[in-house]
Amino acid sequence: MTDEPLKTPARYPDLAEPRLRPRYSGLASFFRAPVSETGAGVEIGVIGVPFDGGVTNRTGARHGPRAVREASTLVRRFNQATGIGPFDLAKVADLGDAWIEQPFELTGAHAEIEAFFANVRARAITALAVGGDHSISLPILRGLKPSAPLGLVHFDAHCDTGDDYLGSRFHHGAPFRRAAEEGLIDPKRTIQLGIRGSVNSREMWAFSHDSGMRVIPMEEFADLGWRKVAEEARALMGAGPAYLTFDIDGLDPVFAPGTGTPEPGGVSMLEAQRFLRALDGVDFVGADLVEVSPPFDPSGLTAMNAGAILFEILCVLSTALDRRRAGGTN
Amino acid sequence: MTDEPLKTPARYPDLAEPRLRPRYSGLASFFRAPVSETGAGVEIGVIGVPFDGGVTNRTGARHGPRAVREASTLVRRFNQATGIGPFDLAKVADLGDAWIEQPFELTGAHAEIEAFFANVRARAITALAVGGDHSISLPILRGLKPSAPLGLVHFDAHCDTGDDYLGSRFHHGAPFRRAAEEGLIDPKRTIQLGIRGSVNSREMWAFSHDSGMRVIPMEEFADLGWRKVAEEARALMGAGPAYLTFDIDGLDPVFAPGTGTPEPGGVSMLEAQRFLRALDGVDFVGADLVEVSPPFDPSGLTAMNAGAILFEILCVLSTALDRRRAGGTN
Amino acid sequence: MTDEPLKTPARYPDLAEPRLRPRYSGLASFFRAPVSETGAGVEIGVIGVPFDGGVTNRTGARHGPRAVREASTLVRRFNQATGIGPFDLAKVADLGDAWIEQPFELTGAHAEIEAFFANVRARAITALAVGGDHSISLPILRGLKPSAPLGLVHFDAHCDTGDDYLGSRFHHGAPFRRAAEEGLIDPKRTIQLGIRGSVNSREMWAFSHDSGMRVIPMEEFADLGWRKVAEEARALMGAGPAYLTFDIDGLDPVFAPGTGTPEPGGVSMLEAQRFLRALDGVDFVGADLVEVSPPFDPSGLTAMNAGAILFEILCVLSTALDRRRAGGTN
Amino acid sequence: MTDEPLKTPARYPDLAEPRLRPRYSGLASFFRAPVSETGAGVEIGVIGVPFDGGVTNRTGARHGPRAVREASTLVRRFNQATGIGPFDLAKVADLGDAWIEQPFELTGAHAEIEAFFANVRARAITALAVGGDHSISLPILRGLKPSAPLGLVHFDAHCDTGDDYLGSRFHHGAPFRRAAEEGLIDPKRTIQLGIRGSVNSREMWAFSHDSGMRVIPMEEFADLGWRKVAEEARALMGAGPAYLTFDIDGLDPVFAPGTGTPEPGGVSMLEAQRFLRALDGVDFVGADLVEVSPPFDPSGLTAMNAGAILFEILCVLSTALDRRRAGGTN
Amino acid sequence: MTDEPLKTPARYPDLAEPRLRPRYSGLASFFRAPVSETGAGVEIGVIGVPFDGGVTNRTGARHGPRAVREASTLVRRFNQATGIGPFDLAKVADLGDAWIEQPFELTGAHAEIEAFFANVRARAITALAVGGDHSISLPILRGLKPSAPLGLVHFDAHCDTGDDYLGSRFHHGAPFRRAAEEGLIDPKRTIQLGIRGSVNSREMWAFSHDSGMRVIPMEEFADLGWRKVAEEARALMGAGPAYLTFDIDGLDPVFAPGTGTPEPGGVSMLEAQRFLRALDGVDFVGADLVEVSPPFDPSGLTAMNAGAILFEILCVLSTALDRRRAGGTN
Amino acid sequence: MTDEPLKTPARYPDLAEPRLRPRYSGLASFFRAPVSETGAGVEIGVIGVPFDGGVTNRTGARHGPRAVREASTLVRRFNQATGIGPFDLAKVADLGDAWIEQPFELTGAHAEIEAFFANVRARAITALAVGGDHSISLPILRGLKPSAPLGLVHFDAHCDTGDDYLGSRFHHGAPFRRAAEEGLIDPKRTIQLGIRGSVNSREMWAFSHDSGMRVIPMEEFADLGWRKVAEEARALMGAGPAYLTFDIDGLDPVFAPGTGTPEPGGVSMLEAQRFLRALDGVDFVGADLVEVSPPFDPSGLTAMNAGAILFEILCVLSTALDRRRAGGTN
Repeated sequence: MTDEPLKTPARYPDLAEPRLRPRYSGLASFFRAPVSETGAGVEIGVIGVPFDGGVTNRTGARHGPRAVREASTLVRRFNQATGIGPFDLAKVADLGDAWIEQPFELTGAHAEIEAFFANVRARAITALAVGGDHSISLPILRGLKPSAPLGLVHFDAHCDTGDDYLGSRFHHGAPFRRAAEEGLIDPKRTIQLGIRGSVNSREMWAFSHDSGMRVIPMEEFADLGWRKVAEEARALMGAGPAYLTFDIDGLDPVFAPGTGTPEPGGVSMLEAQRFLRALDGVDFVGADLVEVSPPFDPSGLTAMNAGAILFEILCVLSTALDRRRAGGTN
Repeated sequence: MTDEPLKTPARYPDLAEPRLRPRYSGLASFFRAPVSETGAGVEIGVIGVPFDGGVTNRTGARHGPRAVREASTLVRRFNQATGIGPFDLAKVADLGDAWIEQPFELTGAHAEIEAFFANVRARAITALAVGGDHSISLPILRGLKPSAPLGLVHFDAHCDTGDDYLGSRFHHGAPFRRAAEEGLIDPKRTIQLGIRGSVNSREMWAFSHDSGMRVIPMEEFADLGWRKVAEEARALMGAGPAYLTFDIDGLDPVFAPGTGTPEPGGVSMLEAQRFLRALDGVDFVGADLVEVSPPFDPSGLTAMNAGAILFEILCVLSTALDRRRAGGTN
Repeated sequence: MTDEPLKTPARYPDLAEPRLRPRYSGLASFFRAPVSETGAGVEIGVIGVPFDGGVTNRTGARHGPRAVREASTLVRRFNQATGIGPFDLAKVADLGDAWIEQPFELTGAHAEIEAFFANVRARAITALAVGGDHSISLPILRGLKPSAPLGLVHFDAHCDTGDDYLGSRFHHGAPFRRAAEEGLIDPKRTIQLGIRGSVNSREMWAFSHDSGMRVIPMEEFADLGWRKVAEEARALMGAGPAYLTFDIDGLDPVFAPGTGTPEPGGVSMLEAQRFLRALDGVDFVGADLVEVSPPFDPSGLTAMNAGAILFEILCVLSTALDRRRAGGTN
Repeated sequence: MTDEPLKTPARYPDLAEPRLRPRYSGLASFFRAPVSETGAGVEIGVIGVPFDGGVTNRTGARHGPRAVREASTLVRRFNQATGIGPFDLAKVADLGDAWIEQPFELTGAHAEIEAFFANVRARAITALAVGGDHSISLPILRGLKPSAPLGLVHFDAHCDTGDDYLGSRFHHGAPFRRAAEEGLIDPKRTIQLGIRGSVNSREMWAFSHDSGMRVIPMEEFADLGWRKVAEEARALMGAGPAYLTFDIDGLDPVFAPGTGTPEPGGVSMLEAQRFLRALDGVDFVGADLVEVSPPFDPSGLTAMNAGAILFEILCVLSTALDRRRAGGTN
Repeated sequence: MTDEPLKTPARYPDLAEPRLRPRYSGLASFFRAPVSETGAGVEIGVIGVPFDGGVTNRTGARHGPRAVREASTLVRRFNQATGIGPFDLAKVADLGDAWIEQPFELTGAHAEIEAFFANVRARAITALAVGGDHSISLPILRGLKPSAPLGLVHFDAHCDTGDDYLGSRFHHGAPFRRAAEEGLIDPKRTIQLGIRGSVNSREMWAFSHDSGMRVIPMEEFADLGWRKVAEEARALMGAGPAYLTFDIDGLDPVFAPGTGTPEPGGVSMLEAQRFLRALDGVDFVGADLVEVSPPFDPSGLTAMNAGAILFEILCVLSTALDRRRAGGTN
Repeated sequence: MTDEPLKTPARYPDLAEPRLRPRYSGLASFFRAPVSETGAGVEIGVIGVPFDGGVTNRTGARHGPRAVREASTLVRRFNQATGIGPFDLAKVADLGDAWIEQPFELTGAHAEIEAFFANVRARAITALAVGGDHSISLPILRGLKPSAPLGLVHFDAHCDTGDDYLGSRFHHGAPFRRAAEEGLIDPKRTIQLGIRGSVNSREMWAFSHDSGMRVIPMEEFADLGWRKVAEEARALMGAGPAYLTFDIDGLDPVFAPGTGTPEPGGVSMLEAQRFLRALDGVDFVGADLVEVSPPFDPSGLTAMNAGAILFEILCVLSTALDRRRAGGTN
């Protein structure tokens, strides 16, 4: 008898589905999806990575996963613009946090993150990570152990292909240089967009240019428009597997004040949403959303927009998964 | 002798007009217009409707009228973009609030609102209501008792043509379905724009489509631009009487964070202002501005933008009134 | 193999206990306790009641359970002041929310809440509810179905023993009149403290006085001090079963700005904490913490203090449970 | 027929009294009292003085009257602690603002304020002013034209008996030196309490000491307690007429962050309320509440506390008026 | 030996340059540039003007310089979009504040500001002023004593060519009328853009039109786009010397809520940045950024955007200086 | 000629002293004291330590020094309560920041801090450090190289005598265990007060008790009162040299919400100020104020209170220095 839930909807049986209940009710898991510590039966796992030990200025991204969980409870079941219903296409769960046992040590923390995502991969789950600072993309990619370098769609105000800074090569301004050097991503199939802001060296992002990445500064993004940039991204990715990384600071700071390294003059939410929808068709095998810093977000706008972006990413991940299942590939 | 005001401007007689005084001074009525409890001699009445009992998620719109009153004191006498001076064209007053005696009971509260607006109509006053949640549009339209179904220009992130939800058919996601069913509005002369966000059912707004409303999703609005959408709205309204309903959540949340159901990726203020100005010529016989929720608006931006929008609506109401007077119609 | 969690602490096995992990990590359940939908094996259940349909002025308490969950993650295992370790004394779980299917209808909502707590009682779980507005105390007490009227320790700025107001006898200013009338609490064993603020009728709380409740206005509380008031409360409760209801607005608004009916000039946190600790020994069989309204709490202080108060309440509930187990009673 | 209000309460006739309606409804006048521009029939007039041209550091007190009006709508009809019902004892109205035609000129602005309060006095209305910065107390006292120097109860963090500073003798740090020099107040019947903070000269408040004012530093206030200080104030005022001036910065900044010159380590709300209540019996003929600066009060706590303090002041003004009427004096 | 700094970077000698250090470290001077009280050897001086005595509604711009200093520490050495490195092109210093001895007297304060900028000019330093309210532009221009009227690029929501208001001809809505009348600027070489908002007189900005200034309302700015407007500005300025004045309220209030006279529906950051970059080539001999009001900017967004705008202005000032040095002119 | 400052006060020569100028003007150094990179001629140096790499939960204290600098500009020259004028007693300067070259590495960062303070000591400057997290006290004490263990007055919510946690023995919960082990402080002459909050182990602060430190929990502090606690502290310190460490989280969170590890139920500002004043007479040879975390302090109250506390500490440091000079000791 005690196996029955304490609350069973009596009048509206549909409300057995948590996403149909009043949105202020229940614990805040990502999208109010079921929570799983083991990932058993899960196809797409949303995973918090509460780590900001790689930040060079304003910290706080360690509090990002909780805030995005809360904000994501505003999201409903279907994407009205595209018709995609990710929860129908895939078994989605909140896998909890890849939390860090040793937060004071950057490379050790990265090793812990890598191990978590290696487990996720071992269980054949597509990972959608929520940071945390951008340094986490490197251990995630390591954990995914791609058999060949992945294509990369990189939405950001910064190329994050810097080098040693203040005693580390693994801070949040350098992960994609490391990832390219380690063969995790293919610079020739990498596109970076939204890039802007002042720099301390004109050669700041030389690695991106020298290695053949396609870099689209904010000004060019505005001139081309989201449609053409998305077309270019799709063409560059082709049919091969790809990874999507979305730094919330790619958005203009009025849309995302709560972030570590804001750069005025960025992308609007509507542009970002439409850009992401237009990526549908790319074979994304994983993704992350990073740099939401709640202490700098007293209005909650950053988390709210992050929740909406996370849903768009979930949609393109779910259709990619659906295509892979149909094609028998992975 | 005590009939004289305690303060009479000595050096600047123009300051007898409250709108010319320092904007931080005086009580906060809508636009610092005179306050009237009876509506005697009033042509356009701005009316608060502090009710949010129809909300499905975040409440607080009951505090909307006060916040918009305060913010509207920033507005001056003339619309610089169009030259319209609504206070010269019409006798404008703040008619106070259609407050609710029985706030715990949704249909009873609606009956009270309807009675208030029936009084307003009986005194031949054009109503400009400030909510409150969007459920109030239904009793307002009932109170206006139009002799024939009205055209409707509906600015919103949601179609608000849903059905029974959580035990009610009269919540803030359904008023325009009810209004169409009751013959208060004409679906064929209804245009809804700014629609977006995730949905819990792909058939969420089927009523809009099935009944012949013109639905313009946010993406289409962005592609067409405000000018073409306004042209289409004007064409659809034609010469017949129409109602204007402006849900503040049609704006992007960076412009209107303080609302109950924000949906990232919306309309900008400049687009909204220009759209509203371009509606000039439509025979609007009433209007409302709804869903300003001050508890979620610590920055005050939502109220400020609402005040500016309210002024644009007042402008098109005042020219419509002026045309009706000239034509002897109504 | 997939039964293993994705993350197992390697270096610090103690961290298997969530409360020892970094406090910003993991989903936010109450006190990071395990979550149970059925209550199987649970001794003390912390339960959210996201309902604010009984509020007479400022709403928002429906968002209270989520905010208190988040804030309660700051709490650790032991009460340093008393040495009590509630998680060692009792099996504590987060039982999720007694959410409402029909939020638009006050008495129906109350019936749903009553049913939930009747289930809790049927499974022999001690309930610690987190509101939600104060109207929820009535259906909780109904659900607990005490065999005899309970003693009541009531911390609040208001006696909440009013009557019909704005069309309802069940709003958040009246639950304890109803509870006394229904025999759920014993007015002679009821103590109300922290009472203050302006009133619309000098007879506002006549029921409290007439029915024999011990009412301690704020001024008397300050003059007596928390120690003597707690002594009086313990004496009044005696050995009989009692219920504890803590309205966050009993605290001064600098400690709890985020509430629906703030009254300047209240109790400090340190006084409240020490008062609650001094209640140890009373046989509390249930408790609630109500009126946390996050939309009015942009600083988060209210939620943080609510988390700390909730821990103090959990401590006195856990020792009461321990005594009952030792005595074989319930 | 159009003489009838648009809204007449049907079910609850008591609601004809605005203070009994839902507190979020209606325009925000002080205490939701009737508004009068002439003061006809008014006995106690609450008056905004939106002027901050006398401020030496942080401005914004010009926005004070609006914010206190809004916050004062939380106040109900009776003082629960004392039983006083000021709205029954006196005809209370909101007289609008003593707004300034020439805000750029300090002495001219003061002349305008003086003229307004001279009108108030000429109509035999007891004035309760809401600032505005503390410099307004001087022109208010001038306008009151007391036949003999008044006693003064002065709650503040600063003595405000400074001299020339940055080109003016009439800034907000000097009004009571000027008032004493002009024979408006009697230094021997002046008590200043709550004084604290760093100073730029050890002789900063020499005038207070030299002229015989009773100065109670914060430390002494804390040691004596509010009761003894109030006793001393009552003894000093005796039976003669007195003025009460309450600078919100006398409160600790946690209770009143929104003020121009905050000084950590001040009085609590409960102490201030009880102190004011204990002044009952003094023959106050006027009062002001100053230095609420809304731009520095994003939480709204300062305005809320100011509203509660304003009510306590209204209470002691109303009993003083009542005694004068009974005694046929004034 | 004590001549050595207490801290000398040991591992990263580049960090001797403050702009390369962690951005949260060190005192907040403008751009972390060296501070100079005398201007010796300085080519471009950034100067705070903490004065808001000319404001007609919301004050607080006196706190602007400090807030912009703090926000400008986020700026790095090079402009990524244009490649300009202003700190390499010119010796840039923070010259401290043109603070006011007599803040209560508008014309006296203006005289003090004029004297400061006359000193700056006498030492052949190009001035970049940070207000303060817009009234400061007049005394700055007077201090610069141009040998012939300057061209003016004026970014603002208001033309600021009003006349007497509330007792002054020198408030923040009139500086450019005065400047034209005094021969400091050439109306025929003046362009004003971003103009919008309601007005109290349709003739509000008649002086701009009558004197031949090019006025671009917001609507026209949006239709033309930033590129064409910048082309027009460059053509109008020609080869002659010009002044740049940037009122932060030209931006939409979502980008700049913290300002005294916000007008919804303005320019976005990206548009403003690109417009300013496209002005490169104009011979700017001075500039100001005004109307940042921190008390109305709790989010800090206004200051952050102001810091980014200030950097764009510094860039065009530095290339103009470089060209003048190359040409031997000034 | 260019040696003259650009601004010399003409009418008020006293204003040459920055602390007498309007408090919103000028760059924000600590107390508006002169800035020195070398410390030449300085007797008391206020030093920022922008480091938070030792934090176990909420970060942000790296932004503390800037925020306290800004808030300290509200402080004037003399302590009104005690008459102490620290700027007359000692040459006080802002020595800038002990910033970190290698922020990603905890022990390396500590080494850099130690080196900075060793330089300070070598130049015979008394150090007053502003953190930063509490882990910095250890390297500061190491840098001070006391010839014998120092007495310690420790104001805090936590004893900070923990051990290894999450991979480090040098985090912000352990510095005083390390300091005692290294002979930097004398546990028998250590007093810790304000201690409270929940703990994860009942033995959490066993080291404090076992080593003979005098630990005063919050409850005992409240019962004894600040006077007796200060007497005890003075007695314990005796005539020997001592260090003062003030963790802002010792204050109740309403006074200091902006901190990393808030614990409800703490000390009030007035109590803290009076306690510090009563320490006068102790031979303090150095001090720190730590754990101000601006990202969690949107109201600015924490920084404001920190500025006031810093002034009290400066006062007791300056009289101690004065006594040492008189006695020829150091």
